[in-house]
Amino acid sequence: MRRLAVLGATGSIGESTLDVVRRFPDRFRVVALAAGGRRIDRLAAQVRETGARWVAVPDEAAAEALRSRGVTAEILAGPEGLVQVAGLEEADVVVSAVVGAAGLLPTYAAVLAGKTVALANKESLVAAGEVVMAAARRTGARILPVDSEHSALFQALEGREPGQVRRLILTASGGPFRGRSRTSLAGVSVDQALTHPNWSMGPKITVDSATLMNKGLEVIEARWLFDVAADRIDVAVHPESIVHSLVEFVDGSLIAQLGPPDMRIPIAYALSHPERLPLPDLSVDLVRAGRLTFEEPDREAFPCLDLAYEALRAGGTVPAVLSGANEEAVAAFLSRRLGFLEIAEAVAAALEAHRPHALTTVQGALEADLWARRFVKGWVGRRGRG
Amino acid sequence: MRRLAVLGATGSIGESTLDVVRRFPDRFRVVALAAGGRRIDRLAAQVRETGARWVAVPDEAAAEALRSRGVTAEILAGPEGLVQVAGLEEADVVVSAVVGAAGLLPTYAAVLAGKTVALANKESLVAAGEVVMAAARRTGARILPVDSEHSALFQALEGREPGQVRRLILTASGGPFRGRSRTSLAGVSVDQALTHPNWSMGPKITVDSATLMNKGLEVIEARWLFDVAADRIDVAVHPESIVHSLVEFVDGSLIAQLGPPDMRIPIAYALSHPERLPLPDLSVDLVRAGRLTFEEPDREAFPCLDLAYEALRAGGTVPAVLSGANEEAVAAFLSRRLGFLEIAEAVAAALEAHRPHALTTVQGALEADLWARRFVKGWVGRRGRG
Repeated sequence: MRRLAVLGATGSIGESTLDVVRRFPDRFRVVALAAGGRRIDRLAAQVRETGARWVAVPDEAAAEALRSRGVTAEILAGPEGLVQVAGLEEADVVVSAVVGAAGLLPTYAAVLAGKTVALANKESLVAAGEVVMAAARRTGARILPVDSEHSALFQALEGREPGQVRRLILTASGGPFRGRSRTSLAGVSVDQALTHPNWSMGPKITVDSATLMNKGLEVIEARWLFDVAADRIDVAVHPESIVHSLVEFVDGSLIAQLGPPDMRIPIAYALSHPERLPLPDLSVDLVRAGRLTFEEPDREAFPCLDLAYEALRAGGTVPAVLSGANEEAVAAFLSRRLGFLEIAEAVAAALEAHRPHALTTVQGALEADLWARRFVKGWVGRRGRG
Repeated sequence: MRRLAVLGATGSIGESTLDVVRRFPDRFRVVALAAGGRRIDRLAAQVRETGARWVAVPDEAAAEALRSRGVTAEILAGPEGLVQVAGLEEADVVVSAVVGAAGLLPTYAAVLAGKTVALANKESLVAAGEVVMAAARRTGARILPVDSEHSALFQALEGREPGQVRRLILTASGGPFRGRSRTSLAGVSVDQALTHPNWSMGPKITVDSATLMNKGLEVIEARWLFDVAADRIDVAVHPESIVHSLVEFVDGSLIAQLGPPDMRIPIAYALSHPERLPLPDLSVDLVRAGRLTFEEPDREAFPCLDLAYEALRAGGTVPAVLSGANEEAVAAFLSRRLGFLEIAEAVAAALEAHRPHALTTVQGALEADLWARRFVKGWVGRRGRG
């Protein structure tokens, strides 16, 4: 019986995690849940269903709202509650599915506590990969990717010598604007950006997918998860989202992981690794899929991809700035204060204005992230729509 | 330094093996070569190049021809020579690339001697898989597939629990007649059948690829190599020959091996396993490949595939009959004594006429094979073109 703490429980990954738990009641028990305050009814229902003993919410108002719904679990309010459930002695596996930089401290807490971390939060490794991975080596924490792409790479690399890898190839759906020219993207709406062709995800990740920043962040994650240099990580656009990523080996052989675009597969694998759980209703029919295609990413129309490579090569605090600036710029886009193409412009401006320095602590990454957010806020303000 | 005996040295697999050896002179040394008598000049050149100490040829005439070309290695003439080099104490790895049933005894000898067998000969496992695999378990011989499809399955399965496999999916190029109706195949010529779209192989295997018997034989091989029942082995036609095969796991995840259609990759892997050798000139460009497609095999136009499944399910001596009947029927087709569609008819007639019995020895498989050849010879004769 593995005991789980699910952080980001009411989001897309959190719900899929609970679906997996529901299928295997003899294998998993949820001991703690953490979620934002927006879906309190849902969170209360999750606490009832799972019998979680701890619940972390962002503030006292959310805690009160839970109590008023009859939740009797121990409720922890505020950001420190999130960190507390991440390091809970009673949990074996921490599902880190909080979106954005808010996921960094709890992920780090889980790593410091030596947990198995099922990692969906991108920012933990993007902003502070060096620090988090070094801590994992010290504590023996295992970081298992939940992202479909990194899970694919993890599966393709499993049991193989790192020295035999020629390169990693991350696939990208290309998002809703694949094939469009840079100029045609100037006027796209929030609704258009939120219409992802294959995956159903939260709004922030969906916009990141439309700008290809999502893939850029994944390149940075892959660098840390698999200890492979940036120049050996490539991106291929694969609109069908069936080949979730590939590893090329020194002999020219490629090992790929394929599957339906359903997050329950990577989630289940992270939860039960090294075992695979039977998910008989999930499969991909290659004949029906018709064809699998691959394209070069359009780096002119989607400059966020190269910004991410640039940040990764610069190292130190720069990836944290990339991540923070992007999160703020996407928020500004979602609230109609920034145009689609301005997301990349804002991030580029932040990277240019930043004075990079070495990264030795998670705190340093959070400060760089915060600096970048402030910078982008100011940048958006100067654009006159803030 | 691994010491190799290469059986079938002047064939397509043999030449590719020597190409791999040439690239890694510090890793491999060829101690023995065996080949048919048709390319004596080439064989003599191979002996000179590799410095092989033993050479096996089918008869005294071929031995004499070698000697007259100044070959000073120890020459073994006759079928027992082939068996002798397969069990040579001085060899660590036996590359079994003799085509057809003639490969069975030497493969078995290598297995009995506890060698690592790089297996390209299909008939060894098709005709006597049960016996050969049982012997390998007893002697500790390792059988590493050289076939691109089985190498792909081997790579996809490596390090994974057999209990987690849902099914194996062997890919098939579909051969030169993919998409053609059964009736349109009645008059196809030998030259048409020998024009394979992707792979350059010997004539027998090329015709087997055109009838899909090749894939049927591979299904039977896979059953023994990976200990997976027939009903969990599927075939998908994949005309691009880039995805060499896939394994579906219980969670709906597929692991695939991809690569350029170049036999040196699976050969090098079998020779150097568990290491991979750098082959920097070999790679596949997925973007350039354009698209990967998958189709159901046309079981009506290519009945050989179902005949193979039928033989595998029947078990015992039946797969040996399938293999022997097919080899004879293909020979009759190549010498214009049989039409293309009659290959399957001859095999079906042999399966029907055969009285199956259990298989306990390689000798039993050879007898069944021989019976089937005689049957098909007679069948062809009765058709009036023998």
